[in-house]
Amino acid sequence: MTAPARSTAQRIDDTLRRLERDVDAWVATASAEGEPCMVPLSFMWDGATLLFSTAPGNPTARNLAAGGRARVGIGETRDVVLMECDVEPVPAAEMAPEVVDAFAAKAGFRPGPRYVYLRMTPLWVQAWREVNELAGRDLPSLSAKATEATEATEATERLTPLT
Amino acid sequence: MTAPARSTAQRIDDTLRRLERDVDAWVATASAEGEPCMVPLSFMWDGATLLFSTAPGNPTARNLAAGGRARVGIGETRDVVLMECDVEPVPAAEMAPEVVDAFAAKAGFRPGPRYVYLRMTPLWVQAWREVNELAGRDLPSLSAKATEATEATEATERLTPLT
Repeated sequence: MTAPARSTAQRIDDTLRRLERDVDAWVATASAEGEPCMVPLSFMWDGATLLFSTAPGNPTARNLAAGGRARVGIGETRDVVLMECDVEPVPAAEMAPEVVDAFAAKAGFRPGPRYVYLRMTPLWVQAWREVNELAGRDLPSLSAKATEATEATEATERLTPLT
Repeated sequence: MTAPARSTAQRIDDTLRRLERDVDAWVATASAEGEPCMVPLSFMWDGATLLFSTAPGNPTARNLAAGGRARVGIGETRDVVLMECDVEPVPAAEMAPEVVDAFAAKAGFRPGPRYVYLRMTPLWVQAWREVNELAGRDLPSLSAKATEATEATEATERLTPLT
Protein backbone atom coordinates (compact mmCIF):
# COMPACT_ATOMS: atom_id res chain seq x y z
CA MET A 1 0.00 0.00 0.00
CA THR A 2 1.59 3.22 -1.16
CA ALA A 3 1.08 6.36 0.91
CA PRO A 4 -0.52 9.34 -0.84
CA ALA A 5 1.90 11.56 -2.74
CA ARG A 6 3.27 14.37 -0.62
CA SER A 7 2.68 18.00 -1.55
CA THR A 8 5.61 20.11 -2.69
CA ALA A 9 5.54 21.95 0.63
CA GLN A 10 5.70 18.65 2.51
CA ARG A 11 8.58 17.40 0.38
CA ILE A 12 10.49 20.62 1.04
CA ASP A 13 9.89 20.25 4.78
CA ASP A 14 10.97 16.60 4.70
CA THR A 15 14.03 17.41 2.61
CA LEU A 16 15.13 20.21 4.91
CA ARG A 17 14.69 17.90 7.90
CA ARG A 18 16.89 15.29 6.22
CA LEU A 19 19.50 17.91 5.39
CA GLU A 20 19.61 19.06 8.99
CA ARG A 21 19.39 15.73 10.81
CA ASP A 22 20.90 13.10 8.54
CA VAL A 23 24.61 12.55 9.08
CA ASP A 24 25.65 10.61 5.99
CA ALA A 25 25.16 10.90 2.25
CA TRP A 26 26.17 8.84 -0.74
CA VAL A 27 28.60 10.93 -2.80
CA ALA A 28 29.28 10.01 -6.43
CA THR A 29 32.12 11.57 -8.37
CA ALA A 30 34.10 10.73 -11.49
CA SER A 31 37.73 10.89 -12.47
CA ALA A 32 38.79 12.82 -15.56
CA GLU A 33 39.13 9.43 -17.26
CA GLY A 34 35.51 8.59 -16.54
CA GLU A 35 35.99 6.17 -13.63
CA PRO A 36 33.07 6.41 -11.22
CA CYS A 37 33.51 6.58 -7.46
CA MET A 38 30.83 6.45 -4.78
CA VAL A 39 31.27 6.37 -1.01
CA PRO A 40 29.24 7.29 2.07
CA LEU A 41 30.48 10.53 3.66
CA SER A 42 29.23 12.60 6.56
CA PHE A 43 28.05 16.14 5.90
CA MET A 44 26.84 19.38 7.46
CA TRP A 45 24.12 21.55 5.88
CA ASP A 46 24.35 25.29 6.48
CA GLY A 47 21.09 26.30 4.85
CA ALA A 48 22.53 26.71 1.37
CA THR A 49 25.42 24.31 0.92
CA LEU A 50 26.55 20.86 2.07
CA LEU A 51 29.99 20.59 3.64
CA PHE A 52 32.01 17.38 3.42
CA SER A 53 35.63 16.65 4.33
CA THR A 54 38.05 13.94 3.37
CA ALA A 55 41.78 13.26 3.10
CA PRO A 56 43.40 14.76 0.01
CA GLY A 57 44.61 11.38 -1.22
CA ASN A 58 41.17 9.77 -1.26
CA PRO A 59 39.44 9.22 -4.61
CA THR A 60 36.63 11.68 -3.90
CA ALA A 61 39.11 14.44 -3.04
CA ARG A 62 41.28 13.63 -6.05
CA ASN A 63 38.27 13.69 -8.37
CA LEU A 64 37.25 17.10 -7.01
CA ALA A 65 40.70 18.66 -6.52
CA ALA A 66 39.92 21.28 -9.14
CA GLY A 67 36.22 21.49 -8.29
CA GLY A 68 33.58 19.99 -10.51
CA ARG A 69 30.35 18.09 -10.07
CA ALA A 70 29.08 15.54 -7.60
CA ARG A 71 25.83 13.64 -7.33
CA VAL A 72 24.60 13.39 -3.75
CA GLY A 73 21.94 11.02 -2.41
CA ILE A 74 20.45 11.30 1.07
CA GLY A 75 17.97 8.93 2.65
CA GLU A 76 16.93 5.50 1.54
CA THR A 77 16.27 4.29 -1.99
CA ARG A 78 12.49 4.61 -1.40
CA ASP A 79 12.72 7.97 0.34
CA VAL A 80 15.23 9.73 -1.83
CA VAL A 81 16.68 13.21 -1.79
CA LEU A 82 18.86 13.39 -4.88
CA MET A 83 20.89 16.41 -5.95
CA GLU A 84 23.41 17.51 -8.49
CA CYS A 85 26.01 19.74 -6.86
CA ASP A 86 28.65 22.19 -7.92
CA VAL A 87 31.75 21.53 -5.79
CA GLU A 88 34.33 23.96 -4.45
CA PRO A 89 37.30 22.44 -2.56
CA VAL A 90 38.51 24.45 0.45
CA PRO A 91 41.75 23.63 2.31
CA ALA A 92 41.29 23.00 6.04
CA ALA A 93 43.56 25.96 6.82
CA GLU A 94 41.12 28.31 5.15
CA MET A 95 38.09 27.17 7.12
CA ALA A 96 36.69 29.36 9.88
CA PRO A 97 37.26 27.69 13.29
CA GLU A 98 33.59 27.90 14.22
CA VAL A 99 32.65 26.09 11.01
CA VAL A 100 35.25 23.42 11.72
CA ASP A 101 33.80 22.98 15.22
CA ALA A 102 30.26 22.78 13.89
CA PHE A 103 31.30 20.25 11.27
CA ALA A 104 33.08 18.09 13.84
CA ALA A 105 30.02 18.11 16.09
CA LYS A 106 27.68 17.16 13.25
CA ALA A 107 29.83 14.69 11.33
CA GLY A 108 31.31 12.95 14.36
CA PHE A 109 34.94 13.36 13.37
CA ARG A 110 37.39 16.26 13.26
CA PRO A 111 39.24 16.55 9.94
CA GLY A 112 43.00 16.84 10.27
CA PRO A 113 45.00 19.90 9.18
CA ARG A 114 45.80 18.42 5.77
CA TYR A 115 42.21 17.56 5.02
CA VAL A 116 40.19 19.10 2.24
CA TYR A 117 36.69 20.42 2.74
CA LEU A 118 34.26 20.11 -0.14
CA ARG A 119 31.56 22.74 -0.25
CA MET A 120 28.69 21.55 -2.44
CA THR A 121 26.00 23.82 -3.80
CA PRO A 122 22.85 22.09 -5.10
CA LEU A 123 22.15 22.84 -8.76
CA TRP A 124 18.93 20.83 -8.60
CA VAL A 125 17.15 18.87 -5.90
CA GLN A 126 14.64 16.07 -6.27
CA ALA A 127 12.66 14.23 -3.60
CA TRP A 128 10.48 11.16 -4.15
CA ARG A 129 9.43 7.95 -2.51
CA GLU A 130 7.35 5.76 -4.78
CA VAL A 131 5.93 5.92 -8.31
CA ASN A 132 3.12 8.23 -7.26
CA GLU A 133 5.68 10.87 -6.33
CA LEU A 134 7.54 10.98 -9.62
CA ALA A 135 5.44 13.92 -10.73
CA GLY A 136 6.50 16.91 -8.74
CA ARG A 137 9.84 15.48 -7.64
CA ASP A 138 11.73 18.64 -8.68
CA LEU A 139 12.16 21.11 -5.84
CA PRO A 140 13.56 24.20 -7.56
CA SER A 141 13.11 26.40 -4.50
CA LEU A 142 15.83 24.38 -2.74
CA SER A 143 18.36 24.97 -5.51
CA ALA A 144 20.87 27.74 -5.16
CA LYS A 145 20.49 28.68 -8.81
CA ALA A 146 17.41 28.82 -10.93
CA THR A 147 16.78 25.28 -12.06
CA GLU A 148 17.03 24.79 -15.74
CA ALA A 149 15.59 21.66 -17.22
CA THR A 150 16.53 18.97 -14.74
CA GLU A 151 17.73 15.89 -16.46
CA ALA A 152 15.53 12.85 -16.46
CA THR A 153 16.55 10.36 -13.83
CA GLU A 154 15.87 6.66 -14.03
CA ALA A 155 13.16 6.90 -11.43
CA THR A 156 10.50 6.04 -13.98
CA GLU A 157 12.24 2.83 -14.92
CA ARG A 158 12.80 1.77 -11.35
CA LEU A 159 9.26 2.28 -10.25
CA THR A 160 7.14 1.46 -13.26
CA PRO A 161 4.46 -0.95 -12.06
CA LEU A 162 4.31 -4.45 -13.45
CA THR A 163 2.58 -4.51 -16.83
CA MET B 1 26.97 2.08 21.72
CA THR B 2 28.58 0.32 18.79
CA ALA B 3 27.86 -3.36 18.29
CA PRO B 4 30.85 -5.72 18.25
CA ALA B 5 32.52 -6.09 14.86
CA ARG B 6 31.08 -8.93 12.82
CA SER B 7 33.24 -11.84 11.76
CA THR B 8 34.06 -12.29 8.09
CA ALA B 9 31.66 -15.23 7.92
CA GLN B 10 28.88 -13.11 9.40
CA ARG B 11 29.55 -10.27 6.97
CA ILE B 12 29.41 -12.69 4.06
CA ASP B 13 26.10 -14.07 5.34
CA ASP B 14 24.70 -10.57 5.83
CA THR B 15 25.92 -9.45 2.41
CA LEU B 16 24.41 -12.45 0.65
CA ARG B 17 21.12 -11.82 2.46
CA ARG B 18 21.14 -8.20 1.27
CA LEU B 19 21.93 -9.29 -2.28
CA GLU B 20 19.01 -11.71 -2.27
CA ARG B 21 16.40 -9.66 -0.43
CA ASP B 22 17.15 -5.99 -1.09
CA VAL B 23 15.38 -4.57 -4.11
CA ASP B 24 17.24 -1.31 -4.76
CA ALA B 25 20.84 -0.23 -5.02
CA TRP B 26 22.57 3.08 -5.57
CA VAL B 27 24.36 2.89 -8.92
CA ALA B 28 27.12 5.36 -9.73
CA THR B 29 28.51 5.71 -13.24
CA ALA B 30 30.46 8.32 -15.17
CA SER B 31 30.31 9.74 -18.66
CA ALA B 32 33.36 9.69 -20.89
CA GLU B 33 33.72 13.39 -20.09
CA GLY B 34 33.91 12.65 -16.37
CA GLU B 35 30.39 13.70 -15.36
CA PRO B 36 29.16 11.60 -12.45
CA CYS B 37 25.70 10.06 -12.31
CA MET B 38 24.06 8.24 -9.42
CA VAL B 39 20.50 6.91 -9.19
CA PRO B 40 18.64 4.24 -7.26
CA LEU B 41 17.86 1.22 -9.44
CA SER B 42 16.28 -2.14 -8.70
CA PHE B 43 18.33 -5.29 -9.17
CA MET B 44 18.32 -9.07 -9.15
CA TRP B 45 21.24 -11.14 -7.83
CA ASP B 46 21.81 -14.53 -9.47
CA GLY B 47 24.58 -15.77 -7.22
CA ALA B 48 27.42 -14.26 -9.23
CA THR B 49 26.19 -11.08 -10.91
CA LEU B 50 23.73 -8.25 -10.34
CA LEU B 51 21.20 -7.57 -13.08
CA PHE B 52 19.77 -4.09 -13.64
CA SER B 53 17.64 -2.68 -16.46
CA THR B 54 16.90 0.80 -17.70
CA ALA B 55 15.83 2.67 -20.83
CA PRO B 56 18.62 3.13 -23.37
CA GLY B 57 18.29 6.92 -23.27
CA ASN B 58 18.85 7.24 -19.53
CA PRO B 59 22.21 8.53 -18.29
CA THR B 60 23.18 5.24 -16.63
CA ALA B 61 22.52 3.30 -19.85
CA ARG B 62 24.34 5.88 -21.95
CA ASN B 63 27.34 5.83 -19.62
CA LEU B 64 27.49 2.04 -19.88
CA ALA B 65 26.49 1.60 -23.53
CA ALA B 66 29.93 0.17 -24.31
CA GLY B 67 30.34 -1.53 -20.94
CA GLY B 68 32.66 -0.18 -18.31
CA ARG B 69 32.64 0.25 -14.55
CA ALA B 70 29.99 1.04 -11.97
CA ARG B 71 30.11 1.54 -8.23
CA VAL B 72 27.19 -0.09 -6.47
CA GLY B 73 26.05 0.54 -2.91
CA ILE B 74 23.44 -1.57 -1.13
CA GLY B 75 22.02 -0.94 2.31
CA GLU B 76 22.25 2.13 4.48
CA THR B 77 25.24 4.37 5.01
CA ARG B 78 25.92 2.67 8.36
CA ASP B 79 25.36 -0.85 7.05
CA VAL B 80 27.12 -0.70 3.75
CA VAL B 81 27.76 -3.22 1.05
CA LEU B 82 29.94 -1.45 -1.48
CA MET B 83 31.23 -2.97 -4.69
CA GLU B 84 33.12 -2.09 -7.80
CA CYS B 85 31.57 -3.83 -10.81
CA ASP B 86 32.50 -4.67 -14.34
CA VAL B 87 29.45 -4.00 -16.53
CA GLU B 88 28.24 -5.80 -19.62
CA PRO B 89 25.18 -4.33 -21.39
CA VAL B 90 22.73 -6.90 -22.81
CA PRO B 91 19.81 -5.94 -25.12
CA ALA B 92 16.40 -7.04 -23.85
CA ALA B 93 15.94 -9.18 -26.97
CA GLU B 94 18.95 -11.30 -26.00
CA MET B 95 17.73 -12.09 -22.50
CA ALA B 96 16.34 -15.53 -21.69
CA PRO B 97 12.58 -15.28 -20.99
CA GLU B 98 12.91 -16.98 -17.61
CA VAL B 99 15.51 -14.44 -16.55
CA VAL B 100 13.23 -11.61 -17.68
CA ASP B 101 10.39 -13.10 -15.64
CA ALA B 102 12.59 -13.51 -12.58
CA PHE B 103 13.83 -9.96 -12.92
CA ALA B 104 10.30 -8.58 -13.23
CA ALA B 105 9.20 -10.47 -10.13
CA LYS B 106 12.16 -9.25 -8.08
CA ALA B 107 12.46 -5.67 -9.32
CA GLY B 108 8.75 -4.95 -9.48
CA PHE B 109 8.67 -3.75 -13.08
CA ARG B 110 8.95 -5.42 -16.46
CA PRO B 111 11.48 -3.75 -18.77
CA GLY B 112 10.15 -2.94 -22.23
CA PRO B 113 11.50 -4.51 -25.44
CA ARG B 114 13.86 -1.60 -26.10
CA TYR B 115 15.33 -1.67 -22.62
CA VAL B 116 18.92 -2.50 -21.87
CA TYR B 117 19.94 -4.95 -19.19
CA LEU B 118 23.16 -4.28 -17.33
CA ARG B 119 24.91 -7.34 -15.98
CA MET B 120 27.34 -6.32 -13.26
CA THR B 121 30.11 -8.58 -11.97
CA PRO B 122 31.68 -7.56 -8.66
CA LEU B 123 35.42 -6.95 -8.88
CA TRP B 124 35.62 -6.30 -5.16
CA VAL B 125 33.09 -6.28 -2.33
CA GLN B 126 33.30 -4.53 1.02
CA ALA B 127 30.91 -4.63 3.97
CA TRP B 128 31.09 -2.48 7.08
CA ARG B 129 28.92 -0.73 9.59
CA GLU B 130 30.91 1.44 12.00
CA VAL B 131 34.55 2.28 12.64
CA ASN B 132 35.19 -1.02 14.41
CA GLU B 133 34.40 -2.85 11.18
CA LEU B 134 36.84 -1.04 8.93
CA ALA B 135 39.40 -3.76 9.48
CA GLY B 136 38.23 -6.80 7.59
CA ARG B 137 35.79 -4.97 5.34
CA ASP B 138 37.15 -6.64 2.20
CA LEU B 139 35.24 -9.79 1.26
CA PRO B 140 37.35 -11.30 -1.53
CA SER B 141 35.42 -14.56 -1.53
CA LEU B 142 32.39 -12.69 -2.88
CA SER B 143 34.31 -11.28 -5.83
CA ALA B 144 34.15 -12.98 -9.16
CA LYS B 145 37.83 -12.43 -9.73
CA ALA B 146 40.70 -12.65 -7.31
CA THR B 147 40.77 -9.37 -5.48
CA GLU B 148 43.92 -7.41 -6.00
CA ALA B 149 44.67 -4.55 -3.69
CA THR B 150 41.30 -2.92 -3.13
CA GLU B 151 41.53 0.81 -3.23
CA ALA B 152 41.18 2.72 -0.01
CA THR B 153 37.72 4.09 0.49
CA GLU B 154 36.96 7.13 2.57
CA ALA B 155 35.47 5.00 5.29
CA THR B 156 38.28 5.90 7.65
CA GLU B 157 37.63 9.60 7.24
CA ARG B 158 33.92 9.25 7.74
CA LEU B 159 34.14 7.25 10.89
CA THR B 160 37.24 8.52 12.67
CA PRO B 161 36.16 9.22 16.25
CA LEU B 162 36.34 12.74 17.58
CA THR B 163 39.86 13.65 18.66
